[in-house]
Amino acid sequence: MVNESMLKLGTNRSCIRELFEYGLRQAAIVGKENVFDYSLGNPSIPAPPEVNETLVDIVRNTDSLAVHGYTPAPGLPAAREAIAAELSERYGVRIRGANIFLTCGAAPALIAVIRALNMGGSEIVAIAPFFPEYRPFAESNGAKLVVVPADVPSFQINWPELEARLNERTQAVIVNTPNNPSGVIYTRETLERLAALLEKKSAEVGHPIFLIADEPYRELAYDGAEVPFIPTVYPNTIVCYSYSKSLSLPGERIGYICVPDWVEDSATVFAAIAGAARASGHVCAPALQQRVVALCAHSRPNVRAYDENRALLYEQLSAFGYDCVKPNGAFYMFVKAPGGDSQAFSDRAKEKNLLIVPGGDFGVPEYFRICTCVSKDMILRSLPAFKALIEE
Amino acid sequence: MVNESMLKLGTNRSCIRELFEYGLRQAAIVGKENVFDYSLGNPSIPAPPEVNETLVDIVRNTDSLAVHGYTPAPGLPAAREAIAAELSERYGVRIRGANIFLTCGAAPALIAVIRALNMGGSEIVAIAPFFPEYRPFAESNGAKLVVVPADVPSFQINWPELEARLNERTQAVIVNTPNNPSGVIYTRETLERLAALLEKKSAEVGHPIFLIADEPYRELAYDGAEVPFIPTVYPNTIVCYSYSKSLSLPGERIGYICVPDWVEDSATVFAAIAGAARASGHVCAPALQQRVVALCAHSRPNVRAYDENRALLYEQLSAFGYDCVKPNGAFYMFVKAPGGDSQAFSDRAKEKNLLIVPGGDFGVPEYFRICTCVSKDMILRSLPAFKALIEE
Repeated sequence: MVNESMLKLGTNRSCIRELFEYGLRQAAIVGKENVFDYSLGNPSIPAPPEVNETLVDIVRNTDSLAVHGYTPAPGLPAAREAIAAELSERYGVRIRGANIFLTCGAAPALIAVIRALNMGGSEIVAIAPFFPEYRPFAESNGAKLVVVPADVPSFQINWPELEARLNERTQAVIVNTPNNPSGVIYTRETLERLAALLEKKSAEVGHPIFLIADEPYRELAYDGAEVPFIPTVYPNTIVCYSYSKSLSLPGERIGYICVPDWVEDSATVFAAIAGAARASGHVCAPALQQRVVALCAHSRPNVRAYDENRALLYEQLSAFGYDCVKPNGAFYMFVKAPGGDSQAFSDRAKEKNLLIVPGGDFGVPEYFRICTCVSKDMILRSLPAFKALIEE
Repeated sequence: MVNESMLKLGTNRSCIRELFEYGLRQAAIVGKENVFDYSLGNPSIPAPPEVNETLVDIVRNTDSLAVHGYTPAPGLPAAREAIAAELSERYGVRIRGANIFLTCGAAPALIAVIRALNMGGSEIVAIAPFFPEYRPFAESNGAKLVVVPADVPSFQINWPELEARLNERTQAVIVNTPNNPSGVIYTRETLERLAALLEKKSAEVGHPIFLIADEPYRELAYDGAEVPFIPTVYPNTIVCYSYSKSLSLPGERIGYICVPDWVEDSATVFAAIAGAARASGHVCAPALQQRVVALCAHSRPNVRAYDENRALLYEQLSAFGYDCVKPNGAFYMFVKAPGGDSQAFSDRAKEKNLLIVPGGDFGVPEYFRICTCVSKDMILRSLPAFKALIEE
């Protein structure tokens, strides 16, 4: 009576959501302060103050019909120009407003790009550890997700494994840097080597292999780490960006796709993405948030709290004997599960009301993920549980 | 290099958008006051004042993390409960919050329902005149759109033509009442006859044929016309609603799907819809607008201006000799093209800077659509052009 794969997608909850909801239930039983929830990547720092001030100012001082009216499908010209200007200025390149397509966040952006590139059963390559939703994004839209095993423990790229998976059916490789779940940023060296490999393979297979840069964490970098702008390293890069983390607006569904002019057949790729967005129900990105972005494209989050949490967790867990990947971006830390089975370890942790996400869905079952977008208080309260678990 | 059907969808602009953009270019040449643009169905009455007041109040007085944070995929419990309570109260039925799934407007709502019901090549039946986007919504997502010719000139339902198109591959019939483009509301009698036919056919084919009620114009009714709540007439009805017109928030992308408990296997249908939404990039509906809806679910637009425009246009065009369908809902009027070819007539009108939409894409090539969500001034200025065109 209904489509089985859609039913499965709607029924099989993500293990992250399951953990999160378990935490809510446990909190009602043992008290909120006794549950240590590291499951959900929900920003814990508020939107920069100018974002909310701008929002109120727009609603107060702009005609309601203009504020809330339909915008063109790719977005308000003012928002597209502001985003393009910010990128151009920051990276010393020429991005035009016409290269920007505003979306309801990164999820529909990625799906539009995948659908635009998928010729029917095309392969989209993801590099472990990877965001688990890439799988339904590709597979529910007729493409095939091919996973490259992780480069442990650096969590850069396992080159022979990647090369072995590139062939004439490969339409794109998705990279997510700063990375969810590892918190690692691909170095410039990694990206240059990736570019060289994709150039070589594109020539071999006779069509461009695109790079999809999934960049919701671009502004979340620590210790002065560089986050290279990938289109300057590999020309055939399509950027999917979200303001969910950079402006702490995850529920508002505002992001964009950038197809620079130097992408091969840029206008055709852009048009196919616009068509794919339409096929998935895109009309325009939320109009009020487009106006906010037009005025706040230069705003940056104050990431000090994430940085402090990261330092505290890395230091304490390492001292307890955990094998942690040192994160320099995003708001996650990836930790090797004592015993090597992160599912079993997560289950043990759950008994102590410590909620950590096993790495299986990210393609690395021996590691678990913890979110550092939590309160410092909760971290301090949770440390005895981490200590007990490794000593058991 | 890219998917051809997506490219086609992104390249073939809708004729409505083409006309609208032609109007903008002409305005720069002949002056804005000399272009009579009846092309776009963009609300011309502002959001009810309490909507913007509520919006500012939420941003000012609620914690930023809560306002802009992710919500559960089906929506904030408060928004789901408020919508359910409003429907229950108004129609004397029992709709629960759990029956409501908030979406980024009606377009992704319709696509989620179509994808949830499509078993691969399933048939979705639309009744002319119909909203042209139904075609890409169905066809880009693996279903087949089957069109029932219009019942001219009442624009209710042509029964033999509908019945002839219902078979074992039919998963749903979409109705849009009040209708875009005709402005006609299906009477209770029509809906009861439709329900009886679908009951009979469902029994014959051995599975439910769902009714998809696409209802963005539900609140726009005139002359005291009744807009029946279709789930009370036909149990297997799934409602797709949008606040675009009822709260004049078209750019904000906020709407919902309602799957009442009395739909067959309601929970399964709901789960499949949730999965299909996820497969199309749904994470949550814009969080701030969800909060607005939670507090303004009872707000109604002041439709007096639409009503006056409707009366004025109907009276004047009829006096000139046009054969108009008298609209009692939405903000459109459907008019028979003198000569019977609405494309040719629209082309002639364009020469007089009068922009009217030919009915071919709506499935009725002998009629054209005019939007009544325009200014009264523009209507008055445009009347000589309408008069001249029919006299030529």
